[in-house]
Amino acid sequence: MTATSAAKRGIPDATVARLPGYLRALDGLVAQGVGSVSSEELATSSGVSSAKLRKDLSHLGSYGVRGVGYDVGHLRYQISRALGLTQDWPVAIIGMGNLGRALASYGGFAPQGFTVVAVLDRDPAVVGQRVGDLVVQPMEVLPSLTEGGQVAIGVIAAPAASSQDVADQLVAAGFSSILNFAPGVISVPDHVQVRKVDLATELQILAYHEQRRTSPGADLEVAR
Amino acid sequence: MTATSAAKRGIPDATVARLPGYLRALDGLVAQGVGSVSSEELATSSGVSSAKLRKDLSHLGSYGVRGVGYDVGHLRYQISRALGLTQDWPVAIIGMGNLGRALASYGGFAPQGFTVVAVLDRDPAVVGQRVGDLVVQPMEVLPSLTEGGQVAIGVIAAPAASSQDVADQLVAAGFSSILNFAPGVISVPDHVQVRKVDLATELQILAYHEQRRTSPGADLEVAR
Repeated sequence: MTATSAAKRGIPDATVARLPGYLRALDGLVAQGVGSVSSEELATSSGVSSAKLRKDLSHLGSYGVRGVGYDVGHLRYQISRALGLTQDWPVAIIGMGNLGRALASYGGFAPQGFTVVAVLDRDPAVVGQRVGDLVVQPMEVLPSLTEGGQVAIGVIAAPAASSQDVADQLVAAGFSSILNFAPGVISVPDHVQVRKVDLATELQILAYHEQRRTSPGADLEVAR
Repeated sequence: MTATSAAKRGIPDATVARLPGYLRALDGLVAQGVGSVSSEELATSSGVSSAKLRKDLSHLGSYGVRGVGYDVGHLRYQISRALGLTQDWPVAIIGMGNLGRALASYGGFAPQGFTVVAVLDRDPAVVGQRVGDLVVQPMEVLPSLTEGGQVAIGVIAAPAASSQDVADQLVAAGFSSILNFAPGVISVPDHVQVRKVDLATELQILAYHEQRRTSPGADLEVAR
């Protein structure tokens, strides 16, 4: 594969999804002052097989050295750069209910290069309120946020019933990356990337297993 | 397959993971006063194929009626019951940093049957503080929380560096369901169910696509 065709195709989605895990494992090694790491060690601490790790890293042009492994600092830089983490990504959060306020006040985005720069709500009674260091803005400002590429990522923290409407407004305003915290499915054009964080679904899956543990067969009782 | 062997095996994991989506689609239909739904309609609003939907629901012993479809109310009950949502699941949150506090204050768990009944932190300076309606308790109370099955689900909101330690303490205290918000991999015994919610990874995957859109090929620049 030439660099040009690879650039067109990009890194496979499944590999992209595993890069953040490798990055975290490398961060841990940097913190311990470790200078080089074998593919086996890095694979174990990332929870994948070493064959998969080597294949994933080969997509970044990183092959390691036999008997020495990977240079921790350089590999960390390569992955950060591949993921686009060597620059800052401004984030707008839409929907200032409980979850939106919690996310806006959550300090964990900024250290990773994701800065919440705008919070919006469609309720006029909420617009103008302070949430952390920001003032809630009306939905009408959405298009102005993407001018000149200021804001890159839109976070949907609206209720499920209005999530499609918010997604449509984000797309119309020129957002092409959406992180959706609302339960349910949203439809967007092909050029828009959507990632989902669904607390409700994860809890319900745990409830299923917890019920099976405490009342075996209850999941199927109605089927008998 | 007999009901007994099905009860032993349970519903396939992939089906369990899709049930919350069907439930949400059915909630929407109930709200609209719709009494019955075809597999095609329900599949479309859940974002799956109708063949997959019918297969999934057959694991619950629900087959629908040709030309009529599924009874919305009954199917909703069957799925709720299969998922264990006809009872309440008390939740304990471990780690009262930004994320833990945000989750403890987030009002969205309770209406779905997940009630936050305890918040814990290992820092003596944080223990005793109020978070919402609760007082932060020390880690030493963990074993008492699971006595008599009071608390079912442990939520890890600790930093990545201490997430394995918290997981070990949850397992030792008798928790068998863990929702992990800390980045990285945690190891638990086979009988313990872990689900992950990883905001950082989702944002990093979006950053990758956003970078490819704004600077095509930058992900592979270091590889050339």
